[in-house]
Amino acid sequence: MSSMKQIVQCVPNFSEGRDLKKIEKIVEPFRAKDGVKLLDYQNDEDHNRAVVTVVGEPEPLKEAVIEAMGLAVELIDMRQHQGQHPRMGATDVVPFIPVKHVTPQEAIQISKDVASQVADKYNLPVFLYEKSAATPARQNLAAIRQGQFEGMAEKIKLPEWKPDYGPAQIHPSAGATAIGARMALVAYNVNLDTGNFEIADRIAKQVRHISGGLRYCKGIGIELKDRGIVQVSMNMSDYTKTALYRVFELIRIEARRYGVNVVGSEIIGLVPMEALIETAAYYLGLEDFSMEQVLETRIWE
Amino acid sequence: MSSMKQIVQCVPNFSEGRDLKKIEKIVEPFRAKDGVKLLDYQNDEDHNRAVVTVVGEPEPLKEAVIEAMGLAVELIDMRQHQGQHPRMGATDVVPFIPVKHVTPQEAIQISKDVASQVADKYNLPVFLYEKSAATPARQNLAAIRQGQFEGMAEKIKLPEWKPDYGPAQIHPSAGATAIGARMALVAYNVNLDTGNFEIADRIAKQVRHISGGLRYCKGIGIELKDRGIVQVSMNMSDYTKTALYRVFELIRIEARRYGVNVVGSEIIGLVPMEALIETAAYYLGLEDFSMEQVLETRIWE
Repeated sequence: MSSMKQIVQCVPNFSEGRDLKKIEKIVEPFRAKDGVKLLDYQNDEDHNRAVVTVVGEPEPLKEAVIEAMGLAVELIDMRQHQGQHPRMGATDVVPFIPVKHVTPQEAIQISKDVASQVADKYNLPVFLYEKSAATPARQNLAAIRQGQFEGMAEKIKLPEWKPDYGPAQIHPSAGATAIGARMALVAYNVNLDTGNFEIADRIAKQVRHISGGLRYCKGIGIELKDRGIVQVSMNMSDYTKTALYRVFELIRIEARRYGVNVVGSEIIGLVPMEALIETAAYYLGLEDFSMEQVLETRIWE
Repeated sequence: MSSMKQIVQCVPNFSEGRDLKKIEKIVEPFRAKDGVKLLDYQNDEDHNRAVVTVVGEPEPLKEAVIEAMGLAVELIDMRQHQGQHPRMGATDVVPFIPVKHVTPQEAIQISKDVASQVADKYNLPVFLYEKSAATPARQNLAAIRQGQFEGMAEKIKLPEWKPDYGPAQIHPSAGATAIGARMALVAYNVNLDTGNFEIADRIAKQVRHISGGLRYCKGIGIELKDRGIVQVSMNMSDYTKTALYRVFELIRIEARRYGVNVVGSEIIGLVPMEALIETAAYYLGLEDFSMEQVLETRIWE
């Protein structure tokens, strides 16, 4: 209960989803360090990939990430790696997410500190992505990773794909890594009282950014066959700018033209408190409300 | 960021609102102790009363409350005390409120531990109130405190007002104290687009418990003269059972019969995160949502 502790979240993805002993070794630095808390880690055998969720104060968190990346360099050989998920490195991608008393700018600085140190320490090429990207072409992870580990050996020699840190050649066994700051992702789905997939698909296109919708919303229609209904399945990539209630109400409005109702919604995985408190504040029409009025923010600030 | 820390809130009221030096001395134990955090303290000169808001882990919080009550016994003489607010003791009332990983039963036990210890240590009569009350007649603080400090000297000798701990006579200078467990109070007001006080007054009567409304809602109508509107001003005494959205929607429904609209609402002071997250979950129709999905509960559990 000390004062104004800064908290950052990190969700590193490692290219090992089958050898649990290796995964245990890689996450060990997240268990061992004061000021760092391992929230979750999950491996996927088909993807051959492990996704780790960890939070902590900036300095110990940076140290733990650097150590874990060192273990990934030691333990994972990309030349032997097969899996369904696109990947380019032993540590494939490392996003840093501001949680408490951390600005996006500070999260960018943290990502650059880690990128610079792992490049030097492990002779690893690093691309800065998302909010840390030096150019718009590097904001999108998929664009950086295109060609994957196998194609990166040649791609990285192109002037336009010179890495931001480290050598302009892949690490022979560990490939290359993308590191950057981004906002918290919220996986948010809205369910409709119809089995007609076409309707979910159309509404997804109406509300998502790429086809004319809300700036920080990605979405597709999907069928929930066991329930006989369809869903607009979304990733909200900055809830501070594209609020959950806004996309929920917009889907309700779009559904109306098909005579369809929203029957409910769901959040998959973790959601920052503020995303839901902002939603409550909208529906209650709260006047002059501040997050400082939330007891928990006062206890743990 | 240790695991599953229990957190209790305490809001002791001391009968000193004018001598700031005395107040500083009384709150000192809340500043000094590891595992205890002083969130707020406010004095009111007219009431001649100070209200302290503190949170902490059960053991250090109990110790700090007992120390602060000892200082109040030393520093406050009720024989000299005048003020507008009803009061019966130097430490007038001490509610304990469960916040995290604490059951109402545990909060009751904490209140009894403190009551027993301060009764012994300071020869102070203590009444258990609210959820800690031994009988329904003692649940209500106002009933216990009726007659105030001046009347308590005789009242406490009556068999039905024998204190739960300590002697059946007031402490000569410190009077008597009520200690108990209660749920968090949320001060919640809903604003109407009319200047007609009568409408706020009627709606308050329709939604509050005492006159037929919701179980954990107290309310009155008030005028906001500078805005030319009226307000239903409420105390929600258990948001886990009477949700904020329920009283908000009920007021909207009642207002309709007068052709009046709700223009907004406001929360005064602190509110537990869960009260607003439950509200968001209602409006979004969240399916299978758990508080464990809130990032902050995972960071600080």
